Amino acid sequence: MSADPRLLANAIRALSMDAVQAANSGHPGMPMGMADAATILFTEYLKFDPQDPDWHDRDRFVLSAGHGSMLIYSLLHLTGYAHPTMEEIRNFRQLNSPCAGHPENFMLKGVEATTGPLGQGFAMAVGMTIAERHLNAVFGDDLVDHRTWVIAGDGDLMEGVNHEAVGLAGHLQLGRLNVLWDNNKITIDGATDLSTSEDIPARYRASGWHVVSCDGHDFDSIRRALDEAVADPRPTLIDCSTIIGWGAPNKMGTSATHGAALGADEVAAARKHLVWDSEPFDLPEPIVTAWREAGRRSAKTHEEWRVRLAVSPHREEFVRRMEGRLPQGFSLDEYFAQLAANPQKVATRKASELALEAINALLPETIGGSADLTGSNNTKTNAQKPLTKEDYSGRYIYYGIREFGMSAAMNGMALHGGVIPYGGTFLVFADYCRPAIRLSALQGARVVYVMTHDSIGLGEDGPTHQPVEHVMSLRMIPNLAVYRPADAVETAESWALALERTDGPSLLCLTRQNLPQLRRELGENAVSRGAYRLRTATAARRVVLLATGSEVEVALQAAEALEGQGIGADVVSMPCWSLFDAQDAAYRADILPENAFKVSVEAGATLGWERYVGPRGLAIGLDRFGASAPAEDLFKRFGFTAEAIVPRIVAALKAQGDQ
Amino acid sequence: MSADPRLLANAIRALSMDAVQAANSGHPGMPMGMADAATILFTEYLKFDPQDPDWHDRDRFVLSAGHGSMLIYSLLHLTGYAHPTMEEIRNFRQLNSPCAGHPENFMLKGVEATTGPLGQGFAMAVGMTIAERHLNAVFGDDLVDHRTWVIAGDGDLMEGVNHEAVGLAGHLQLGRLNVLWDNNKITIDGATDLSTSEDIPARYRASGWHVVSCDGHDFDSIRRALDEAVADPRPTLIDCSTIIGWGAPNKMGTSATHGAALGADEVAAARKHLVWDSEPFDLPEPIVTAWREAGRRSAKTHEEWRVRLAVSPHREEFVRRMEGRLPQGFSLDEYFAQLAANPQKVATRKASELALEAINALLPETIGGSADLTGSNNTKTNAQKPLTKEDYSGRYIYYGIREFGMSAAMNGMALHGGVIPYGGTFLVFADYCRPAIRLSALQGARVVYVMTHDSIGLGEDGPTHQPVEHVMSLRMIPNLAVYRPADAVETAESWALALERTDGPSLLCLTRQNLPQLRRELGENAVSRGAYRLRTATAARRVVLLATGSEVEVALQAAEALEGQGIGADVVSMPCWSLFDAQDAAYRADILPENAFKVSVEAGATLGWERYVGPRGLAIGLDRFGASAPAEDLFKRFGFTAEAIVPRIVAALKAQGDQ
Repeated sequence: MSADPRLLANAIRALSMDAVQAANSGHPGMPMGMADAATILFTEYLKFDPQDPDWHDRDRFVLSAGHGSMLIYSLLHLTGYAHPTMEEIRNFRQLNSPCAGHPENFMLKGVEATTGPLGQGFAMAVGMTIAERHLNAVFGDDLVDHRTWVIAGDGDLMEGVNHEAVGLAGHLQLGRLNVLWDNNKITIDGATDLSTSEDIPARYRASGWHVVSCDGHDFDSIRRALDEAVADPRPTLIDCSTIIGWGAPNKMGTSATHGAALGADEVAAARKHLVWDSEPFDLPEPIVTAWREAGRRSAKTHEEWRVRLAVSPHREEFVRRMEGRLPQGFSLDEYFAQLAANPQKVATRKASELALEAINALLPETIGGSADLTGSNNTKTNAQKPLTKEDYSGRYIYYGIREFGMSAAMNGMALHGGVIPYGGTFLVFADYCRPAIRLSALQGARVVYVMTHDSIGLGEDGPTHQPVEHVMSLRMIPNLAVYRPADAVETAESWALALERTDGPSLLCLTRQNLPQLRRELGENAVSRGAYRLRTATAARRVVLLATGSEVEVALQAAEALEGQGIGADVVSMPCWSLFDAQDAAYRADILPENAFKVSVEAGATLGWERYVGPRGLAIGLDRFGASAPAEDLFKRFGFTAEAIVPRIVAALKAQGDQ
Repeated sequence: MSADPRLLANAIRALSMDAVQAANSGHPGMPMGMADAATILFTEYLKFDPQDPDWHDRDRFVLSAGHGSMLIYSLLHLTGYAHPTMEEIRNFRQLNSPCAGHPENFMLKGVEATTGPLGQGFAMAVGMTIAERHLNAVFGDDLVDHRTWVIAGDGDLMEGVNHEAVGLAGHLQLGRLNVLWDNNKITIDGATDLSTSEDIPARYRASGWHVVSCDGHDFDSIRRALDEAVADPRPTLIDCSTIIGWGAPNKMGTSATHGAALGADEVAAARKHLVWDSEPFDLPEPIVTAWREAGRRSAKTHEEWRVRLAVSPHREEFVRRMEGRLPQGFSLDEYFAQLAANPQKVATRKASELALEAINALLPETIGGSADLTGSNNTKTNAQKPLTKEDYSGRYIYYGIREFGMSAAMNGMALHGGVIPYGGTFLVFADYCRPAIRLSALQGARVVYVMTHDSIGLGEDGPTHQPVEHVMSLRMIPNLAVYRPADAVETAESWALALERTDGPSLLCLTRQNLPQLRRELGENAVSRGAYRLRTATAARRVVLLATGSEVEVALQAAEALEGQGIGADVVSMPCWSLFDAQDAAYRADILPENAFKVSVEAGATLGWERYVGPRGLAIGLDRFGASAPAEDLFKRFGFTAEAIVPRIVAALKAQGDQ
């Protein structure tokens, strides 16, 4: 690099302020403030190859402060990625431009994670680093030997999830993680001291981090800090003193540059201030050349890596794992055969453990964990040893009481590739994970959430621990596959689907209490249809009972009782709504025939069940908080027994003049 | 206190292990480990009066580690509260016992907050302390001069929300907050060092806290630490070194005591170890007497306070506020009259600000704030000065980028009483707040959530910032009133209802974009019915359009277009589902007539709308993530225009042979 880094950085500044100005929307302050540090990082430190953005051993870069998206769009364009093109940058924040308001991993190569919801980019980077260290331990330095870099803002650091991410990274001593903190002392509301008085470096040190600082506008200072970060075996926070909106002479250093276009006058003034004569979206050739050259910096390293891969005995397995393909012929058939031969009456959380014993033996890429509920979530199988700072090859993570941090880390692991993360907590604490679950879904990340104690069946812990609204509200999240299996077979079928799914997350809702195994004749994966007829009416069918999870057993008992009264009743198990909704109309109509009286039974919110039972049907559920008592008492108290349900159905049939 | 504190503490231990043993469910380890420190706190420091648990100037005590609920049940019983009785303790964790698995504020006086979801008790205590300092600033030492005490476990401290709570408390220098940390080095999964390596005192100091430590089983050490905590002007973390399950000779110090009954043998061994001869639930008389005496310790202080209150010029206003009554004759009529006279075409977030200008002038008890989006949430009104460590009388809190911490703090403020908190963030970040929103609802706390940018109407920030599933999934939370007003009038009506509601939280979903004012003739609060007919069909009614918020305008345009084709169409605005569902059948049937074709229009998840449109109706919504573009482009792209909607309705009518 012979070009003056300030000139290179000013190209970022110009693109950023011009794109935001053109859109009249966006955040110029952060890209302009961090342009200098980012220039040094991308031109002298980051290992990447714009010609092959998917290079498995590239460094990962996460712009946690995602609102500063023009920073990464500028960097990708300047270093020579195929996208974004200048035209796409011109269309920043317009429909169909990959230069979205916040960086979206599914729109641009080089955007390793979708960021914007504060704190999560950082926390995902922790997961990426875990994946890297794990794969390094498995495949060795020859194939896996890279770093994860983050640019984070004050908002990222103030969010609660940051504490969880910092704690986890410190505990696991993730020295390959380096975070550049854009310490500009400004938030949207004004100066940071409006709302915080924290000594941030001291907090990081308290969690085992290495902290260095630099003047974020002094290139030698930045280089020294990055060198120290790279040299240290601990995760490093690089405290970059910066001025937000650097280059905008009248607004820099103020929150006015944070979240709005600078305005034509200030853009003009900045041009003058930066001695930047080019028209908007027109870059001086020498600067483009210098940037492109920087983009080719790691080409040789990449080529050497390619050679090592080509001759590696691990090549096939490594590539398979990095590409997210399950081993050829992967199947749980043997385990299903065991279930058929030897039915299990177990809680579905236990059934999940049984399935995982089979899965973890077949899939070396799974990495399990729990947010301090290992014995309750049944997430740890026998063969798994812990992943620790002494041994990253372990496949089980004690995440601690960090539900959100765990979920975000799992997103990062899935995005990194090479591993399939799953992690557990109580279903009620899906609320704590929810911002990360949403990002799993948006990013299409293969993460499996193992959420146990999925209803009032949790019992004595009471309403704070009993999910009521959770199953239904999770079904609302686009691209999230929510499973509520009814027995050991459906649990294994759900697991199989979750693992085979490559384009998004799955979430398993599992019981604390034992459930009988309902099927022994096993063929096609029944859960793959989302819903299926588990019991066919004996008498003329007048009722179809729809149920999920632990209430399928109750529905079967109710059906028996109805048949005793001469009322024919189907029972449909509906473990996964989104899969059922994707079936063809004929299948759906067969399962939910027009002329039958439909009754849903689920120990949770009824709102939503109208989709299947219709306005004349009956939705039996729980639209209030639960209570503390043994599970059986609660099922009785809230009417989830055949004795309580059957009279309601009979009365409804009568009222409809149907009897 | 002449009794040996160890004997007093052992009464807690005995009750705790016996109650858990009887229930065969619960957490004996924490109450047994913290019995000594809690005994000193309750018998020598805490200001409270079991004869009048609602004494406004009592100290607040929050058991953040709520799983150790037998600790607080024991303390309440022993100090002489009317409840729990010994019979109720015997029925620990059984249906209808107030001694629920986790402490529920609605079941027992003396339980200041519902705890169990980790981290939140602590964070609510921060809010309680803010309320106390604020009321102290307003009403003076004579009426308000108390402390907030917390017992927190490692789980509370590891949760992300702890970082937010600690940061806020440190920034506001809440010296009246003292937290006893049950530092027993054990979590459910095992030793804390399985998952964390943090220097916790250093972290607290980094946020401006005072930290002291003590041996949690040495009474003089505990006293010294509490004295230092009380003397220091900063919030204090009291690091209590304890042994979990202290007294159970074979299991103490291990996670085996954490979350399960000790077992009959170990209970017997503990009796021997503690030299405790009494039968389960039978307490030695001298010990009961000593505890009861301790319970009367603050009676004189209470009486003196009563006298001061009786003669205080603030008496009436203070009592009104503490009892949560709005001022007599409170009404927004004047503001409504202004809206009638001078209609406002504004975003509903701006309409909320306009309403708040009126409200904040009339209600001195409101305390507003935002998680660093003040200018976007429009939460700050002109007259509000900030609440700061220098001036607690302020009525606006810059919460920082701490959505969850803000929400939990608001719960604490509402539970403390005397203030009505409201706070803002973007609706999409309701996910970050969700665990606290659930606790607002469960606890019946009057908190108002001001959630702006409530759909793809947010525009360019893109899918990470665009709520899709949020409005519907919030409707699932029991006891949460969710409002999505359509204009300035409905926004003010929603605000009026939120303030008048005393038994739970309200959440306002507000637009970024401008909306026309739809009503000028104002009478009854139309939102109070949940849904109402905004437009009556001119031609014979065949269609009823149901919409909320910004889509009401679209529905009105669609209705006009339908009428142009001779198709009569009502438009129903449905700002609050829970209020509509509470209307009588006749009203509901009038609004949603059987024979009309029903169409819902809401720029969010459709799942749930079947409740009102039925299986033959049409739910127009958004069941995928949004995109980054100007709002108008997105409304067009996703079909939320009359031009897009009308043909779908006409086609559906045709398909149904209805035309």
